[in-house]
Amino acid sequence: MTPQISELPRSEIDAFLASRLVGRIGCHHEGSTYVVPVVYAYDGKSFYVASVEGRKVDMMRANPRVCFEVDEVDERSVGVWRSVVAEGVFEELQGLAAARAFALLTRRFVTRTGRTRPKRKPGGRTVAFRIRLEHVTGREVSP
Amino acid sequence: MTPQISELPRSEIDAFLASRLVGRIGCHHEGSTYVVPVVYAYDGKSFYVASVEGRKVDMMRANPRVCFEVDEVDERSVGVWRSVVAEGVFEELQGLAAARAFALLTRRFVTRTGRTRPKRKPGGRTVAFRIRLEHVTGREVSP
Repeated sequence: MTPQISELPRSEIDAFLASRLVGRIGCHHEGSTYVVPVVYAYDGKSFYVASVEGRKVDMMRANPRVCFEVDEVDERSVGVWRSVVAEGVFEELQGLAAARAFALLTRRFVTRTGRTRPKRKPGGRTVAFRIRLEHVTGREVSP
Repeated sequence: MTPQISELPRSEIDAFLASRLVGRIGCHHEGSTYVVPVVYAYDGKSFYVASVEGRKVDMMRANPRVCFEVDEVDERSVGVWRSVVAEGVFEELQGLAAARAFALLTRRFVTRTGRTRPKRKPGGRTVAFRIRLEHVTGREVSP
């Protein structure tokens, strides 16, 4: 059998991104590339994330051009496989914009899991940021 | 509740990497960072991948220093969350080394899914490569 690869139209990309909860940020600084999973909320223009300060936040402050990837692969069969890869720009949020991001994330998390969002780990300041989407492609592979 | 974050020892990292089938490569070239999911096999020293030529292979040939990320997150609950992030070096494989990689991948795929590995998409040369692991960290987050 030969798998079929099709490009997803933007409407399907947006529906897929809105349906998922975990994505991966790829960032790069001074020769190192770093990929890390995050819980996100998506409003059609940006990915919103809250995170304690640390390596990924440091790297994105130094180089705000990042990649945001979301996929859905059934590990047991690896049959149908969808992935969306976006290029975007990191923007740290303050004040009301940060409060809006935390609210979006809380609503998304509770809607999806039925649980309240856990508190972040003790120590380390929690920052809110968005990845403003500049370019996005999506693919579906089916057997 | 406050989530607990613990660092995984190398033995648990290796067991986790050996148990999974899909990881994500993060590569970077000329200002662009690109994250893409791949099926892999792991032998304790390298991640083995087969792929048609395209953007990720072009980027890794230009800049072989890459990130390899594997995670396990239950999208429904986002309760326990494990992720492993490795830094490594891309090495394209030829001849016997390529044949060994294809055999490793086929065995891994069949063992895991019970299916034969699908043929790659028509057109585009399939290349085998490994990401030689240089540094790895693993984390587990539990509620």
